[in-house]
Amino acid sequence: MAFTDIATRTWDHNWRLDPIVRSLLDTDFYKLLMLQMIRHLHGDVDATFRLINRSTSVRLADVIDEAELRAQLDHARSVRFAKKELIWLAGNSFYGKQRMFAPDFIQWLSEFQLPPYELHRVDGQFELTFDGPWTHTTMWEIPALAIVNELRARAALRDKGRFALDVLYARAKAKLWDKVERLRALPDLVISDFGTRRRHGFLWQRWCVEALKEGLGSRFIGSSNVLLAMDNDLEAIGTNAHELPMVLAALAGDDAGVASAPYRVLEEWQAHYDGNLRVVLPDAFGTAAFLRDAPDWVAGWTGFRPDSAPPIEGGEQIIAWWQAHGQDPREKLLIFSDGMDVDSIERVYRHFHGRVRMSFGWGTNLTNDFRGCDPDGAAGLEPISLVAKVTRANGRPAVKLSDNPAKATGEPAEIARYLHIFGADGRQESAVSV
Amino acid sequence: MAFTDIATRTWDHNWRLDPIVRSLLDTDFYKLLMLQMIRHLHGDVDATFRLINRSTSVRLADVIDEAELRAQLDHARSVRFAKKELIWLAGNSFYGKQRMFAPDFIQWLSEFQLPPYELHRVDGQFELTFDGPWTHTTMWEIPALAIVNELRARAALRDKGRFALDVLYARAKAKLWDKVERLRALPDLVISDFGTRRRHGFLWQRWCVEALKEGLGSRFIGSSNVLLAMDNDLEAIGTNAHELPMVLAALAGDDAGVASAPYRVLEEWQAHYDGNLRVVLPDAFGTAAFLRDAPDWVAGWTGFRPDSAPPIEGGEQIIAWWQAHGQDPREKLLIFSDGMDVDSIERVYRHFHGRVRMSFGWGTNLTNDFRGCDPDGAAGLEPISLVAKVTRANGRPAVKLSDNPAKATGEPAEIARYLHIFGADGRQESAVSV
Repeated sequence: MAFTDIATRTWDHNWRLDPIVRSLLDTDFYKLLMLQMIRHLHGDVDATFRLINRSTSVRLADVIDEAELRAQLDHARSVRFAKKELIWLAGNSFYGKQRMFAPDFIQWLSEFQLPPYELHRVDGQFELTFDGPWTHTTMWEIPALAIVNELRARAALRDKGRFALDVLYARAKAKLWDKVERLRALPDLVISDFGTRRRHGFLWQRWCVEALKEGLGSRFIGSSNVLLAMDNDLEAIGTNAHELPMVLAALAGDDAGVASAPYRVLEEWQAHYDGNLRVVLPDAFGTAAFLRDAPDWVAGWTGFRPDSAPPIEGGEQIIAWWQAHGQDPREKLLIFSDGMDVDSIERVYRHFHGRVRMSFGWGTNLTNDFRGCDPDGAAGLEPISLVAKVTRANGRPAVKLSDNPAKATGEPAEIARYLHIFGADGRQESAVSV
Repeated sequence: MAFTDIATRTWDHNWRLDPIVRSLLDTDFYKLLMLQMIRHLHGDVDATFRLINRSTSVRLADVIDEAELRAQLDHARSVRFAKKELIWLAGNSFYGKQRMFAPDFIQWLSEFQLPPYELHRVDGQFELTFDGPWTHTTMWEIPALAIVNELRARAALRDKGRFALDVLYARAKAKLWDKVERLRALPDLVISDFGTRRRHGFLWQRWCVEALKEGLGSRFIGSSNVLLAMDNDLEAIGTNAHELPMVLAALAGDDAGVASAPYRVLEEWQAHYDGNLRVVLPDAFGTAAFLRDAPDWVAGWTGFRPDSAPPIEGGEQIIAWWQAHGQDPREKLLIFSDGMDVDSIERVYRHFHGRVRMSFGWGTNLTNDFRGCDPDGAAGLEPISLVAKVTRANGRPAVKLSDNPAKATGEPAEIARYLHIFGADGRQESAVSV
């Protein structure tokens, strides 16, 4: 005796779109924090974002059907913030603070829609560009990445039998749980999910978040994904991103304006947010240059997120700088979030334990680690290094230097100009896998 | 938008029995082959079967609720062969032969019901006894074992959260698939599922059988479970069991009758079955004694299933015996089925490859290997050594000596008498884990 829900089965017969982005909260928390500030201070700035596939050997446009991609992007544009989502944003406390988002911002969000996109196929890749007010284009970053990554995963799974899929997910679950058991051995671990942008898929990220909640208990402090944070009563985690100094530097006319842009960003930020939200992302134009020229008051911020530098060297560099500025690192916070996995988390944790407060943002290797899981041994599920970066602000070219030249973005002439302004101290090339 | 089948959900609210045995075909094929012969030649014999838990440290009656056990046993007694099942038994070919089961036997099965049971709790164990006509009590062996094993597994899982269950089954699936991938490296492997009696549960055995069918292709020749063979269009696999020589020896009045019982069984068997069904199970009273006294015509049989002897020594012993009787072992079949797992399958396969035809019956370690899978690390899922053995025939005590004294059953005085009759040559104590 097996009962089947006939209505559901009949609906399924005529398969329609399975939407990847079903909520505008299915994004990273830092986008909302930045958006509130951008709208407040830079509401008149236009910014262009572009999808960049750093894994050039993976020809995305040969793997993903363009019509499917358009259907998903169009669907995301049809989504609005739901009433209950805005009520939650207004009523929830974030980082211990009530009313993080001002009523007029919430009101503004209620009419928000993702802006149009431009999509072309060029040489096996998609050129996916978002042009328009910064307040709108910025919000495409996460959904665009999530859509392309999930469509790629779906393409890799298209021809698999039901059994192969069953084994695949069983192995992925077993693999993640083995990681959870290793992380449990780190008693003071503080870790959060940063995996939205590179996730295998929404449902898989949800499972991963539930796994960490179940398995790590209070060591797991929350998710960067606002929707998953809301649904699972977790903290929404995140602060700010490279787009802020990149846009402010692009808008600055002269070299002096470019050089001071990273600190103007911090001034703007601390006028809006305090406490644990005061986390410096120092590597947009090189961490060494940032620290060299930083005003003393930057040492008063809560922490740093060394992003593109190797974690131990990057952390040591910042600790030394704090000490040189009379700060006790044990009261400071370092957030590690660049391509971390259990091995590197263990290594970094053991290296810095007791010397500084630490927090880990676990991204791609949390939500998209299917290596060794495919019973057919195919490679279509290997994560790729896909980013969405701001390329222009009010028509002027935007640049990111990064501590790792492999992660630099921008036009070559502008990169050269920025290298002249900031210097190349401490930049170190290393392969970008995720 | 999530649709729920409201009728199913409402039914589930008032949870009723989840029956373990839902079909009388959910048994091992050899029971039906033996039953046809027992009914034909020994329809007047009474036989008592008893459940014996050789893992005495596991106090089953403390783990399994007696009322639940009774409800499951009662439910099994309410099950009859379905029409479509009998049509399949009559119409299917087994071991390449049409009409394996005579029409009058099929007719007789249509009215078959499992006979009453007696159940007592004694010192933390269940005394579960089946008394009555051999034609009926024999059919309790597999369902009784499957019921007790699955109830024990259910008890071990009772307090687990949904997430722990998810991880548990994910790990078990990943673990089994890793085994499948290792077995694929053995090109001439011939293997079948023998795991009904010790299975974790029916649904899990079904998954395991589907996994082997999917992953091993033609190397997987079928299942001992008749229902799973029917449902998955697989061969039903099996021949005969110790109960035949045990009962015939018990019925024999004098020592000479006991000594010749193993060969009378073979005479009876070959009057009913031929070809690949002519497989000797030599160890009921010790393999060395069996081979020493065997008539020459036994060497003409297709194969042996060395059961309780160590597989390589047991196999070599039989090969040497074949050679001494002028047989070419490469035309003979050895079936290994005693506590096999991938390691021992690989070892035995490599040892005998090219020298003899081989087939593996994979039991407990196929359908009940959850070692290392429980995220809570509990031990309740460790398989135990539970058997259902014939203890009396027409009131006379039945004995099994086995090649492994740890597997002997029967009253001490009778065991001593049998040892006097058959000798103890080659018997070798080894731990019984499954």
